[in-house]
Amino acid sequence: MTAPFTDLAGLRALLQELPAPDAAAQADAAARNAQLTKPMGSLGRLEELALWYAGWRGTSRPRLARPQVAIFAGNHGVVARGVSAFPAEVTAQMVGNFEAGGAAVNQLARAFGATMTVHPLDLDRPTGDFVTEPAMSEADLLAAMAAGWRAVDPEADLLVAGEMGIGNTCAASAIALALEGGEARDWTGRGTGVDDAGLARKAEAVAQGAARIVGESDPLQVLRQLGGREIAAMAGAILAARHHRIPVILDGFICCSAALVLHRAAPGALDHAVAGHQGAESGHARLLEALGKAPLLSLGLRLGEGSGGTLAIGVLRGALACLSGMATFAEAGVSDG
Amino acid sequence: MTAPFTDLAGLRALLQELPAPDAAAQADAAARNAQLTKPMGSLGRLEELALWYAGWRGTSRPRLARPQVAIFAGNHGVVARGVSAFPAEVTAQMVGNFEAGGAAVNQLARAFGATMTVHPLDLDRPTGDFVTEPAMSEADLLAAMAAGWRAVDPEADLLVAGEMGIGNTCAASAIALALEGGEARDWTGRGTGVDDAGLARKAEAVAQGAARIVGESDPLQVLRQLGGREIAAMAGAILAARHHRIPVILDGFICCSAALVLHRAAPGALDHAVAGHQGAESGHARLLEALGKAPLLSLGLRLGEGSGGTLAIGVLRGALACLSGMATFAEAGVSDG
Repeated sequence: MTAPFTDLAGLRALLQELPAPDAAAQADAAARNAQLTKPMGSLGRLEELALWYAGWRGTSRPRLARPQVAIFAGNHGVVARGVSAFPAEVTAQMVGNFEAGGAAVNQLARAFGATMTVHPLDLDRPTGDFVTEPAMSEADLLAAMAAGWRAVDPEADLLVAGEMGIGNTCAASAIALALEGGEARDWTGRGTGVDDAGLARKAEAVAQGAARIVGESDPLQVLRQLGGREIAAMAGAILAARHHRIPVILDGFICCSAALVLHRAAPGALDHAVAGHQGAESGHARLLEALGKAPLLSLGLRLGEGSGGTLAIGVLRGALACLSGMATFAEAGVSDG
Repeated sequence: MTAPFTDLAGLRALLQELPAPDAAAQADAAARNAQLTKPMGSLGRLEELALWYAGWRGTSRPRLARPQVAIFAGNHGVVARGVSAFPAEVTAQMVGNFEAGGAAVNQLARAFGATMTVHPLDLDRPTGDFVTEPAMSEADLLAAMAAGWRAVDPEADLLVAGEMGIGNTCAASAIALALEGGEARDWTGRGTGVDDAGLARKAEAVAQGAARIVGESDPLQVLRQLGGREIAAMAGAILAARHHRIPVILDGFICCSAALVLHRAAPGALDHAVAGHQGAESGHARLLEALGKAPLLSLGLRLGEGSGGTLAIGVLRGALACLSGMATFAEAGVSDG
């Protein structure tokens, strides 16, 4: 499906026309939930999760039939500064691994019944080194966001957007710093496992990148200046999901940096999204706080790839199974307290 | 399968002969894990979970083929004191609901591919009111523990033990207080939703029950004095699982009170068990601390039934899918950092 924007003005217009959930379906689901054979509220967050999903899908007894995990890959000019534990060629190698079915997220997608699509974005053309120049031109930004938009299956009933890109925690940290403020070290972590010297170089690059564009308050321009193609694509995909009323499970730090751009560009732009997990990357907890999202899982993951978001599909499956499958007090002949 | 004990001495002997995990299989799994296409440790707790499971199942590439959820139900004399928000007849009604497939745990078991078995234990014969008398005779205790033992499918490759029993958070709180000390209010929560007056009655019953047997240091006697049949059966089931080297996912507060009895009766008796979740029942966090177990999930559940433990099967499935299904760096041609 072609993306319904060709310039930043079109994108901004879309961000002002975000569809809302189906309040009637959500109310029906809440009424049903109140009659199920359990003390009210005793399924905790599973109940709110199921009602949230019911609203976005417009049905009081939803099921998850067609979840999609979309993985975007990009390369980053800033990698030349030694900010990652892995060399840039690993991005393309891991895309091969995704396509061959060997990565962690492949196993998780299969385990939770999701289709997985892989979208390498100009891997042989890294973004500009954001310390000294814009990461992307406006045309690059729009192309990457459109690629993300097009990647979303309009018939999917759940989206997890994931990423691969050596150096991309560095870009995500710079975006977070530019949009949220604070100190570079608040937002900079070890990514896939950089050592102390690498971490210091990374924090320095993050600080310099944000300083270069200080005063830039437009989230889309921040994304263009500091982001990678895969981060822009995730933002495009999350926006497309909203357009199609497809609920989203956010993944880790990098995915959440893409989500932050939408969140700052339009209030409520992430109402169709939940936080799948809180990862080990330092800064993710703070980023989730900035998004106003409490994570479903917190298992110390720091892999990216959409892995934590895909794992959280299991929690959503459980929540929907209860809402849609349980008997009511009346059906089961159970006394209602 | 007949339980291999007929008296408390036989039970104590079993607790001294606990099988260990297969260290060689665990080492093989760890070696495999180190070669998989991800930064070492980047799957966080999923990695330790998979290695733990591999050790107990004796294979470096385990899969989950036959998980079992076993639900035990019992009634409690202490209910006459008004310690629950629901009447005692709900226990039998919910057993009917389990058997008909309408409860939350049915949906969760189905969603995560587990077989579910239901074991009502003398529902028309509640335990004695533990405030004034022993909940069970020695014969009752042994019969309930043996029922738990027999309920475990020796061919299962995972066990979740769950429960139903109006009033059983009260019994679980009394067990925890008797074994761990502290104040009754530290261990007493609202269960399925008792009001303030009920909560006060409940804490009073918990305090009196524990006070009645003060000085009793034998965990099996504490279980007999204060526990319910379903709590004793869960302890028997968890012990049987250990005997068969079947890993266990613990459920909520009540299940953990059964586990606590084994933990205090024999150090290491729960090495084959992980904590599936931390529930909303006040005291569960403290109980998990006493067991030395960090929960996989924390979603505010307070239903019991094995629901949280069954939900956590999804996390284990994800962990095993990664360990057993991922490509190695060499297989995928990915540079190893």
